Amino acid sequence: MLEVDKLSLNIPPTTKPRVVIIGGGFGGINLAKKLKCRDFQVVLFDKQNYHGFWPLLYQVATAGLEPDAIAEPLRKMFGSDDFEDFHFRLVRVTGINTAQKTVSTLIGDLAYDYLVIGTGTKPNYFGNEQVKKYSFPLKQIPDALNLRSQMLQCFEQANMTTDPEIRQSLLNFVIVGGGPTGVELAGALAEMRKYVLPTDYPGLDFSTMNIYLVEGLDRVLPPMSPEASKKTHSYLQELGIIMKLNTLVESYDGSIATFKGGEQVRTHTLIWAAGVAGALVDGLPPESLERGRILVNPYNQVLGFNDIFAIGDIAFMKTDEYPRGHPGVAQPAIQQGKLLAKNLKNIISNQPLEPFKYFDKGSLAIIGRNRAVADLPKNIHLGGFFAWVAWLFVHIAYLIGFRNKLVVLSNWIYHFFTYERGTRLIIRPFVRKGDIARQKFMNKYNEE
Amino acid sequence: MLEVDKLSLNIPPTTKPRVVIIGGGFGGINLAKKLKCRDFQVVLFDKQNYHGFWPLLYQVATAGLEPDAIAEPLRKMFGSDDFEDFHFRLVRVTGINTAQKTVSTLIGDLAYDYLVIGTGTKPNYFGNEQVKKYSFPLKQIPDALNLRSQMLQCFEQANMTTDPEIRQSLLNFVIVGGGPTGVELAGALAEMRKYVLPTDYPGLDFSTMNIYLVEGLDRVLPPMSPEASKKTHSYLQELGIIMKLNTLVESYDGSIATFKGGEQVRTHTLIWAAGVAGALVDGLPPESLERGRILVNPYNQVLGFNDIFAIGDIAFMKTDEYPRGHPGVAQPAIQQGKLLAKNLKNIISNQPLEPFKYFDKGSLAIIGRNRAVADLPKNIHLGGFFAWVAWLFVHIAYLIGFRNKLVVLSNWIYHFFTYERGTRLIIRPFVRKGDIARQKFMNKYNEE
Repeated sequence: MLEVDKLSLNIPPTTKPRVVIIGGGFGGINLAKKLKCRDFQVVLFDKQNYHGFWPLLYQVATAGLEPDAIAEPLRKMFGSDDFEDFHFRLVRVTGINTAQKTVSTLIGDLAYDYLVIGTGTKPNYFGNEQVKKYSFPLKQIPDALNLRSQMLQCFEQANMTTDPEIRQSLLNFVIVGGGPTGVELAGALAEMRKYVLPTDYPGLDFSTMNIYLVEGLDRVLPPMSPEASKKTHSYLQELGIIMKLNTLVESYDGSIATFKGGEQVRTHTLIWAAGVAGALVDGLPPESLERGRILVNPYNQVLGFNDIFAIGDIAFMKTDEYPRGHPGVAQPAIQQGKLLAKNLKNIISNQPLEPFKYFDKGSLAIIGRNRAVADLPKNIHLGGFFAWVAWLFVHIAYLIGFRNKLVVLSNWIYHFFTYERGTRLIIRPFVRKGDIARQKFMNKYNEE
Repeated sequence: MLEVDKLSLNIPPTTKPRVVIIGGGFGGINLAKKLKCRDFQVVLFDKQNYHGFWPLLYQVATAGLEPDAIAEPLRKMFGSDDFEDFHFRLVRVTGINTAQKTVSTLIGDLAYDYLVIGTGTKPNYFGNEQVKKYSFPLKQIPDALNLRSQMLQCFEQANMTTDPEIRQSLLNFVIVGGGPTGVELAGALAEMRKYVLPTDYPGLDFSTMNIYLVEGLDRVLPPMSPEASKKTHSYLQELGIIMKLNTLVESYDGSIATFKGGEQVRTHTLIWAAGVAGALVDGLPPESLERGRILVNPYNQVLGFNDIFAIGDIAFMKTDEYPRGHPGVAQPAIQQGKLLAKNLKNIISNQPLEPFKYFDKGSLAIIGRNRAVADLPKNIHLGGFFAWVAWLFVHIAYLIGFRNKLVVLSNWIYHFFTYERGTRLIIRPFVRKGDIARQKFMNKYNEE
């Protein structure tokens, strides 16, 4: 076996200033793409070797797309001659040392001239360890594959029991969090219930399958306009989704979800899309942090530093228009990444820095087959099929890589006309950490 | 958590004769498709919920295709009204009782009128537990995904070490077994070395990457004609593959592969494609078995039974033309499955049974980008680009499902013109059983 101590970062020395980017998300890759490597050496660290288009992750979970359709290898993105002095390293960053200006990783330290933190977010369980242990997150590709297998396995097992209570528990799906992920997942699951599952499982009565959408606030899609929330609410009702607004999950033990107030739902599948927390990096002083995010000025400089930057979801830039920071979606990250490339060039050529101004292109959410809502600039709110078409083209347009666009588009056209979900494959060697009971069961069940 | 004892097979009672099929491979699905359910109730057991097109599995391992392109959900295949009394159960069969005429599974027993065993094969390590523990098999989809991640991770790590011995070990790939899987995998890997990897890893010198192909016999592709073997041999040499014929692997401890005779190769990745053994089901008398396969008569009836059948790779039908049984490829399984459907109908209508006669449509193997060999009937042997085109169309034609064909074809055209390998994603929550050292390392490496 390979020992970690036999590895080293192995970054070539350089006379150019070195920009170290932590995280290959929307912010990191747009920064790196614009920077190229003429004036800088660029080093990108990520725990994955791909950039994911997370707005479509729920499609992987609901058997609509395979991972390659929503993920692009980072090395492929930066493989051209433009990026001769670009260096990707697949390694976890363990912390930073602002005094020595170094980044620490599992396999060694690296000095930086400019450091950019674009680590994004991770699921926030608000300290509930039990929920963390038993619920299914939906943040990364293995999460989506695991959830897909879990749901399909629930149907298989519901078909193999004569105990009505267990069957019901297997057919109850509780989605916690009424944001875009929760809403889009609920919609896709409702469409599967309507079109795909009854053909797949003629022995099951899918009128008994329940999809719960649990939201702590008083409306779904809280970041969008009240008009969009209202329209989404009625769409979700049309699709037969049981909505629990103003409702918090108190506990979940793998079998029973208990809501605050006492109501209980038996379910084998509780999906946690209720909140995110910044994926912080050790080493920043507490005064640079607020609410688990990194405080930045309008140039994305971290409070107290002029050579450390934070972009995207992890950055907390207070403005008059966005006193609680920019929305946690792709666009602010993309725009901040691009602007930072410009500003880093400004810094080394002693030009003044350009402050960030968020250009809101609008937000979109899809609810099932051809229902969607859109908040466009100038206070225009779209609904129905037009919003759906808009959603489709916006997402396709922003998908990384020519091939991915083609794959997603052709999958969509195919789904739309055939009502099919092609990738209903249970591929599940994945067992979540700590989930010993499930692990034992799965091992027994799958053992060869 | 769901306990196994809460599940049951839950097969509806029937007045029609019940055919129980173990295994949704080429034999099982072709039998079930032809049988439909007019005269029989059909129950299919499989540990997976999909049928895999295994001849293309190496493409999943080498980042050319995603699993959905080579796998089709079984429920999708049997979802039409033609299969009203067809019942798929995702469960492992633990044995059969020929006296009571029942099949035992993890969640209960089921009586059969006719039993069909189509369980195929599993990797054969010839009793070498150490090789079993450390090598990478390539038999199932999780194997292919795991191998893909392993190979990509080796390149990432080779890029992160300054120790020349470790780097070489990470860049040595040993493929054991010169059959179609080994040859096609070696070819695809050689193409990656030539076209994709140097762009992805400009810091690595790929002239030092070694691909070993180890075969115990004196030629590659032993099941094909000597002409095809010879041509394949020269193709593999052109691609720079190091061939070790007449060579057996004696041991592999995860770092060093030792061949019989003493030669050693340091490698982090030893791929085991050296042999298969029948995936036998407990409960058949020893006199029905030979060389780990099930002896059948020309009607695929298991020796000693007239209500138990074996088809495909697990069946051993001795004929004058094939004294060692039919080749372990898709065609005999497909043809036996189709014929058995006919013969089961003959049995219940008291018609004479039709003996199996293998119609050899020829064999094909692809070696890299546009080299292939084909043995066609009437002793015609093709090579080069024509064989490659033939290979492509034969494989596409036999791929299950309209969508899969389209996905594979468009992927191929894309690869052919761009030299790309789209799915270079390291998605690796998968750790092989027993491999604690690797597991610990991976956990440490990936830990969030």
